[in-house]
Amino acid sequence: MTRRRRKHWGWGYEDEQPSIEDVRAAAPMVQQLLGFAAAEAEEPVALEDSALRDPRPLPAPPPAGVPWDVSDHARATHAWGKSTLDVVRAFRGRFDHAPDAVARPADEDQVAQILEWAEETEVVVVPYGGGTSVVGGVTPDVLEPSISLDLGALDRVLEVDAVSRAARIQAGVLGPDLERQLAAHDLTLRHFPQSFELSTLGGWLATRAGGHFATGPTRIDDLVESIRAVTPSGIWESRRLPGSGAGPSPDRMLLGSEGILGVITEAWMRVQPRPAHRAGRSVRFPGFLLGAEAVRAIVQAGLRPANCRLVDAREAAFTGAGDGACALLVLAFEAIDAPVEGDLARALELCAECGGTWEGPAADAAGEGASAWRDSFLRAPYLRDLLLQLGVLSETFETAITWERLPALLASVLAATREALDDPRAIVSCRLTHAYPDGAAPYFTVLVPARRGDEEQQWWAVKRAASDALIAGGATITHHHAVGRDHRAWYDRQRPEPFALGLQATKATLDPSGILNPGVLVDLLDVLRV
Amino acid sequence: MTRRRRKHWGWGYEDEQPSIEDVRAAAPMVQQLLGFAAAEAEEPVALEDSALRDPRPLPAPPPAGVPWDVSDHARATHAWGKSTLDVVRAFRGRFDHAPDAVARPADEDQVAQILEWAEETEVVVVPYGGGTSVVGGVTPDVLEPSISLDLGALDRVLEVDAVSRAARIQAGVLGPDLERQLAAHDLTLRHFPQSFELSTLGGWLATRAGGHFATGPTRIDDLVESIRAVTPSGIWESRRLPGSGAGPSPDRMLLGSEGILGVITEAWMRVQPRPAHRAGRSVRFPGFLLGAEAVRAIVQAGLRPANCRLVDAREAAFTGAGDGACALLVLAFEAIDAPVEGDLARALELCAECGGTWEGPAADAAGEGASAWRDSFLRAPYLRDLLLQLGVLSETFETAITWERLPALLASVLAATREALDDPRAIVSCRLTHAYPDGAAPYFTVLVPARRGDEEQQWWAVKRAASDALIAGGATITHHHAVGRDHRAWYDRQRPEPFALGLQATKATLDPSGILNPGVLVDLLDVLRV
Repeated sequence: MTRRRRKHWGWGYEDEQPSIEDVRAAAPMVQQLLGFAAAEAEEPVALEDSALRDPRPLPAPPPAGVPWDVSDHARATHAWGKSTLDVVRAFRGRFDHAPDAVARPADEDQVAQILEWAEETEVVVVPYGGGTSVVGGVTPDVLEPSISLDLGALDRVLEVDAVSRAARIQAGVLGPDLERQLAAHDLTLRHFPQSFELSTLGGWLATRAGGHFATGPTRIDDLVESIRAVTPSGIWESRRLPGSGAGPSPDRMLLGSEGILGVITEAWMRVQPRPAHRAGRSVRFPGFLLGAEAVRAIVQAGLRPANCRLVDAREAAFTGAGDGACALLVLAFEAIDAPVEGDLARALELCAECGGTWEGPAADAAGEGASAWRDSFLRAPYLRDLLLQLGVLSETFETAITWERLPALLASVLAATREALDDPRAIVSCRLTHAYPDGAAPYFTVLVPARRGDEEQQWWAVKRAASDALIAGGATITHHHAVGRDHRAWYDRQRPEPFALGLQATKATLDPSGILNPGVLVDLLDVLRV
Repeated sequence: MTRRRRKHWGWGYEDEQPSIEDVRAAAPMVQQLLGFAAAEAEEPVALEDSALRDPRPLPAPPPAGVPWDVSDHARATHAWGKSTLDVVRAFRGRFDHAPDAVARPADEDQVAQILEWAEETEVVVVPYGGGTSVVGGVTPDVLEPSISLDLGALDRVLEVDAVSRAARIQAGVLGPDLERQLAAHDLTLRHFPQSFELSTLGGWLATRAGGHFATGPTRIDDLVESIRAVTPSGIWESRRLPGSGAGPSPDRMLLGSEGILGVITEAWMRVQPRPAHRAGRSVRFPGFLLGAEAVRAIVQAGLRPANCRLVDAREAAFTGAGDGACALLVLAFEAIDAPVEGDLARALELCAECGGTWEGPAADAAGEGASAWRDSFLRAPYLRDLLLQLGVLSETFETAITWERLPALLASVLAATREALDDPRAIVSCRLTHAYPDGAAPYFTVLVPARRGDEEQQWWAVKRAASDALIAGGATITHHHAVGRDHRAWYDRQRPEPFALGLQATKATLDPSGILNPGVLVDLLDVLRV
């Protein structure tokens, strides 16, 4: 079987790329949905015409037996992640930071061999799962020789403990493949980030990914039983435990480490049967903040909806889930064992108190609004490529904030973003993706006519303005997109300084040559400082 | 108002200590409940007769204005925590490791002044909350001059954010005082460890305390919004956030740090209204493992009981909650907003499938078994002192393990403990205190005639045997009692070695003079190693 090749510039596989005629045919949709005209459809720079420099010679031959790929396609697809910035650059044929080779270890032993080799030769190693980072997390942004360490061959569920409902899973497995293997045991990890199709367990763990669900164990952190990683200083493996109070949690130090401490090779994850009970409804609110009040009331009442996404009127309209007049709350409960209609009824009561209205179950058959929105959610990365070809820049960023500061934060972030966009046609919309008793995670979408050829500066202007507003407003630079290289400046302003010193010292101890994903999270430590 | 003085040797306050006549009067109870005779009632060595050496001279006068206490009572009560070992030694008038002074800072500024002074003078500082450590966590076990840093004066709820349901709370506040202050806002932290009466928020955070509740957010970790600490390298303060994916969690590095990285001074904690709905029942099982199957079925069904404590037949009998023939499951649901009878009914169905039986709500009025057990739970530390005076050594230890390994672990730990006790009269009982979808936390109680004067060796024999069995069986050395000095040897075998190196490097960076709680979690780092 031939392996499907990933597109060299955007989301998905080569065989999914629409023809230029199909792209052109989508132009009227832009006008219709976004209210401004598409530009002339543009084709990506072909890989063979791209500015991809030859691989630099490596200081020593790679470890024998490790699959090694120096093809243009491999190097180009491992040069960037999948942020808008990355896609724009690849679309224009720019691969400034392509690695000099892509290593595809067949097993953990080969991962260890590669790290050993890299430490001896001082070659930079960038761990690579599905390559879906939207924060520059997999970009080998260095002058030294570098390789991308692609975990894609470590793609199996190795062991299932049905009694404890846990599974030992290799880090390189893609979302759909993981779920297929678990389904053979009637189990699911139930972790569905937007990148699900092309992202991996190891990537989720390294970046503290957030799943699709709004409450409960939705962040990957809460599904972890133990993690195993290869570091330049040996194997890091925690015990399989349902809970432990023995010192700070080792797993919580790897979670979010973004490849700077070690390469995650496998993990024991908490799995579960598929939920047998489900009930949902789409609720309209006359205003976004009224909807937010309802979300707050629902989670503060102790209800834990699986879905509780509040989409503003503008976003509801262009995703086809609403009429543009009302904010829309996609509300759904799920349970393994017991009916959830009671929870839904109570949540709807709370919605009504905040001005929410909804159709009866018949009119909401299969939650049409909800399902339109969900389809749109999963289609979004594909749509972004199409929009780029039609001269529309689309960008998303996200955060989290406590409830009492939410209204002011929304106002300041929207204002700062609009000002930076400097285009009356620009659309900035917002949804709440995750809800907690003490706050929520707002997620922003920007759609604006691209300044062709200058998209990179256009993107940075928005990123800078939005990120400054987030940090000034007391929010986090990221709720679940991670830090990578793009968020570094704001991350440094957010984290406690003594923690940064500790993380830097940990990095210097475990990776004294500084080969692992340099530039991410911390600077290399001046060793004499310690 | 005169401040009540803590007992210099055991649990509680001086005015709570029963007279020797009252102790003698309790002797028949020992025979009745434990099946062996009490010994002659013994009185503790009075403080003035104890072996408490004079305070060593400090290298420099303490910072001006910081309340400083060198009284025998202060030094003695800060010499040990409250493990059985600690209580035995204090009872016998031994205070080998008393600090040379007790500092009682009035505010965070004074905490910082003390750390600065200690770093300059190289005086060891042991952070002290309520002093209820059962693992040697507050014992200044060093040859150098040392002080105990008592946070007791930092005892206020500083701010309440009713919208986000969060409160900013000083670290030194005791459980009951904290709840009193929150009750003025109709809120509760709902964190009730067994030590609640005499332990503090800061202690809970530093040791990753486990609350009374069996499922859901019961560990203090999950109630944290942000933490503020003073380190020798500056203030460590995380942002108030409901969730964040920006790098490894800074809070999770302080949680469980046991005073080796910094002194926690305050935290924003998630609070909530008191639950308005409650329903519970006591369920009898013909065997402990059948009860464990029921607990597993309940949590794996997605039910989240507030109480789900499975007590073995022996323990149910001597706590007055059962007849000694059956294991007893104390089962209760609570909710802020909605009735919980449905959850209880479903859980009881699952109990029935595992052989569980129960009385109707009338016969179970106010959950008599449950309430007898709860009273006994809170009385336990007082009872331990009384038993010691009557020649009974009582000890508890706890762990966590995944479900599939639970039966084998229970067998091996019970066998190892009984063998080490080497006394046919010894009682070893077990309960499950916390339940997770993937495992549970077993908690063991040991009751044995004390070998008078040799209790310390007797204690260590049990501790060593049980701890070896825990580690060999794949369990954790502690689910919620922490590591301190007593668990250090087993903790070192449990944790991933690269994590230990990282923690050590973090410690060396933040506390280069090694003044903070030396001996706990890590050894001081040979600086040249980094």
